[in-house]
Amino acid sequence: MSLNFRVVLVEPLYQGNVGSVARAMKNFGFTDLAMVNPCPLEGEARAMSSHARDVLEGATITNRIEEAVAGANLLIGTTGITGSKFDEHIRIPAHVPRELKKHLEGYSGTIALLFGREDKGFTNDELRMMDMILTIPTSEIYPVMNMSHAVAVILYELSDVQAGETPFADPFDTKLLMEHITQVLDDIAYPAHKKEKTELMLKRIFGRARLIPREVQTLRGVLRRIQRNLDLNKKI
Amino acid sequence: MSLNFRVVLVEPLYQGNVGSVARAMKNFGFTDLAMVNPCPLEGEARAMSSHARDVLEGATITNRIEEAVAGANLLIGTTGITGSKFDEHIRIPAHVPRELKKHLEGYSGTIALLFGREDKGFTNDELRMMDMILTIPTSEIYPVMNMSHAVAVILYELSDVQAGETPFADPFDTKLLMEHITQVLDDIAYPAHKKEKTELMLKRIFGRARLIPREVQTLRGVLRRIQRNLDLNKKI
Repeated sequence: MSLNFRVVLVEPLYQGNVGSVARAMKNFGFTDLAMVNPCPLEGEARAMSSHARDVLEGATITNRIEEAVAGANLLIGTTGITGSKFDEHIRIPAHVPRELKKHLEGYSGTIALLFGREDKGFTNDELRMMDMILTIPTSEIYPVMNMSHAVAVILYELSDVQAGETPFADPFDTKLLMEHITQVLDDIAYPAHKKEKTELMLKRIFGRARLIPREVQTLRGVLRRIQRNLDLNKKI
Repeated sequence: MSLNFRVVLVEPLYQGNVGSVARAMKNFGFTDLAMVNPCPLEGEARAMSSHARDVLEGATITNRIEEAVAGANLLIGTTGITGSKFDEHIRIPAHVPRELKKHLEGYSGTIALLFGREDKGFTNDELRMMDMILTIPTSEIYPVMNMSHAVAVILYELSDVQAGETPFADPFDTKLLMEHITQVLDDIAYPAHKKEKTELMLKRIFGRARLIPREVQTLRGVLRRIQRNLDLNKKI
């Protein structure tokens, strides 16, 4: 049992960056690289990967994020600081790499570390998939880091994380839990304009809390009991 | 009073790397860049610096390391892991960035962070100038990091160091102390084959200990008294 980190690049635009990411990964002992619709990867990507050409050539390439993160227990999305108040609930709370490291101590499982496009980052739909949002603390004057530098900094921080025996909940069970929450929110006629934010808030709370399998089952038991009582009330 | 960090690139070979270093510096709020005999810096350096062109264009360019580190209280040299047992005393003990950060907490002064050539690193003469050696913990399989990644990782770690009021010894006084030690070693006919190693060991001990001004003066007082007593003994 241990922690496996997968670096997932979502639609990277510059092959030099992809090569540099592969090199930084190998520098810190990581090899699991996946890419969603990357730019063409040719000579420059190989040159920048230097002696990490094996990581570059061993990368999984997919069309959809869902495939790239298959089997991952937690999805961690890295974003720059955003000044936008709009859609703030999608981006906060954001955690710094040292917090993430502490969060993962003692656990065992697969963590997907996702990095967005060099120019536009992630779409809001993509950010909604994340269990945690990670931000590197940078200067307000120039917060936009080169993607491969961000990967290097995060992997440097995570390279000595102390894994343990505590398992993460199965990603499929967590998905069922979130669907169950949506059902219950519908059952209680939760206001539509609040629903998405509340669902996302719960997802992020669970992400931060690193649910273990038993907790997911107990939470689903609570939800089932709520639903049963709602039905009983209806029948009365 | 605060800590000022100066990034010093010694004979960088690739202008893209220099630009990337400038960007990483600005990302973490640093602007003091110096270079010793850099490669030509043209369009690619500017392109890679992105919005940190001001850092790149504001860099000090010198012919000698001594000029690039003028005024710095501590010289910290960054090296990759070396398997060589030869000249080991020049490279060890090496400290990791987190240790350096703890070392600097509470202090005030100018710290020069030096990075060597992309292909050959530092010469041994250059390494002898360093008060501390810094190494990023990397995978044994592929320990050689891209220079700008190394800068990014170290500045990330140092970006939230808690400075304080404790002053470092003046670099000129520290230089006099080291010369004084050399004199005393000569006075006591210290074996020539051990002399350089012992001098370097003392330099590194002092670097690690972060001498304050009063300590340098007290040490020189001890050395003076040793010399006086040696003279007395001679006269008897």
